Amino acid sequence: MKVKIDSLKKQVIKVLSSRFNEQKSTIIADYLIWAEMSGNKTQGILKMSGTEPIQNVIPESDIKVERETKLSQLINAGQNPAPLVLSQATDVAIKKAKEHGFGIVGVHNTKSSNGAQAYYVEKIAKEGLIGICCSSAPGSVAPYGGIDPLFGTNPIGFAFPTLDEPLVFDMATSAMTWYGLVLAKTNNTKIPHGIAIDKEGNPTDDPELAMGGALLPFDKSFKGSGLSMMIEVLAGPLVSADYCDMSGGEWGSLVMAIDPELLVDQMQFRTNCSDLINKVKQSRKQKGHKEIRIPGEHSRDLYNECMKSGYVNVDEEVIKSIEGLSL
Amino acid sequence: MKVKIDSLKKQVIKVLSSRFNEQKSTIIADYLIWAEMSGNKTQGILKMSGTEPIQNVIPESDIKVERETKLSQLINAGQNPAPLVLSQATDVAIKKAKEHGFGIVGVHNTKSSNGAQAYYVEKIAKEGLIGICCSSAPGSVAPYGGIDPLFGTNPIGFAFPTLDEPLVFDMATSAMTWYGLVLAKTNNTKIPHGIAIDKEGNPTDDPELAMGGALLPFDKSFKGSGLSMMIEVLAGPLVSADYCDMSGGEWGSLVMAIDPELLVDQMQFRTNCSDLINKVKQSRKQKGHKEIRIPGEHSRDLYNECMKSGYVNVDEEVIKSIEGLSL
Repeated sequence: MKVKIDSLKKQVIKVLSSRFNEQKSTIIADYLIWAEMSGNKTQGILKMSGTEPIQNVIPESDIKVERETKLSQLINAGQNPAPLVLSQATDVAIKKAKEHGFGIVGVHNTKSSNGAQAYYVEKIAKEGLIGICCSSAPGSVAPYGGIDPLFGTNPIGFAFPTLDEPLVFDMATSAMTWYGLVLAKTNNTKIPHGIAIDKEGNPTDDPELAMGGALLPFDKSFKGSGLSMMIEVLAGPLVSADYCDMSGGEWGSLVMAIDPELLVDQMQFRTNCSDLINKVKQSRKQKGHKEIRIPGEHSRDLYNECMKSGYVNVDEEVIKSIEGLSL
Repeated sequence: MKVKIDSLKKQVIKVLSSRFNEQKSTIIADYLIWAEMSGNKTQGILKMSGTEPIQNVIPESDIKVERETKLSQLINAGQNPAPLVLSQATDVAIKKAKEHGFGIVGVHNTKSSNGAQAYYVEKIAKEGLIGICCSSAPGSVAPYGGIDPLFGTNPIGFAFPTLDEPLVFDMATSAMTWYGLVLAKTNNTKIPHGIAIDKEGNPTDDPELAMGGALLPFDKSFKGSGLSMMIEVLAGPLVSADYCDMSGGEWGSLVMAIDPELLVDQMQFRTNCSDLINKVKQSRKQKGHKEIRIPGEHSRDLYNECMKSGYVNVDEEVIKSIEGLSL
């Protein structure tokens, strides 16, 4: 159903306020509504329903800064919701990069996933900086040649400022997201061949067997596996989070902001980034492709449509399932 | 033929000295012999033969620093050989990261490719720092949905310090290296199906048609294409190099060194990186896989064998083709 964005936001903040103060509730609401508007429905309002709604998260403690330098901060999230802590971490990375050219913030011990890396890196690029963000998650991907689910779906995002809106790219390093498996299981559908194995390492198209086994890296080969392993380090050991085995519950994320002025003039950089995008956009298309999609373009289009109309489409069942939400 | 490494190095330096001073010749020789010992033969002594041997490169000018901050340096390579300039850039990144926690060095206008990213990032990780390096190259890869060769083979490398030797990962974002195409053409062999298109966008297994057309991204899809585009920006506009069209001859590279101490204790980081590697190495294997290969492991084994024996295997024809080389 079409919902007025302003009313949705007010309602979401109201529900979140049962657990978090207004400022924190607003930060979480901003993320959820951004995801909803960008068409990333599994990261949107859906997070307020189900068995672990985000408004029911009981943090262990406040968010604590465990280490700080001019360029860096290590944050113990105290089991606060990941989008809340990552938004704060992103602001810190931006501030440090604006002051010193580079900011790097590690986060561990969040309550589950920070969701879409695109959200955080886009925020960074809107400040004229280069954003890079990656995150670890419980093991669900087997390394190339292996069977055991040692790596998370380990997404990575990049964003660059341009003359127009930022260039944003965000990908999971797994062949399917974990939520894709959950959805297939719920809907009792098969998953594509060749992207998952059961617990003995046999190929499977059964989502439940895959959940007990492992997904493959996105390219089903050693390059994707290697990239996934790099993110396992960057968002694991480097940020004091768990790795390979997340039974300790320590999810991790890493955010970096780099001022392009360290190397080039800001306007020259923006101009060339825009020109690069145009060159790709205007190049010849393969048969069957009406256009060449720039990373992030589809989500941005959906977001902008919502902004223009003032309305966002939200699943009626999802809205109904959220206690306290009255639209 | 088996060649004594010491004698090979002396000879290589002697040949390079016809163009470069002793210090520069030694830096280039170190790279070439490392590549030869690591089994990366296309980046090794072979670079001293052919139509553009590295010892015949005539630089346009000296290597010039065009911009410098505490954390960064932008270098105009003046058409000096890329491995020479990148080795220097790597040393600068290391120095800055040791002093300030982070070092980022951009290089443009090198004479062709810096070769293996692994060489530079490993050097960084041996200093206890995290190394990231990526490079642009003339367009040979079509973006997902496109036909025109807009992106380079755009490799990226990562390295992390451990309790033992660094963890090193280095990959091209293309489905095949450019040299792979050259080799197939020379040997009059086909290339695998599904990794290249001709200039009209039709699939081809003919290396010559692929060279006139385009390679596909390594995963043949939008994630690989997106990653390639990110590197096109990082090693293009960000370092004042060409992008999408390299007719200006401005190859680019970006080197970053990050001190893990910005976020965690060095020893804790090394310990956990080693533990992560062990967990992967010791996990269950797929049928048909005797072992799970850690990124960089194979090259390191070859390198260490050479170090142990004092000898390296070099193609006799290659040695014969290099003027002035007498072993």
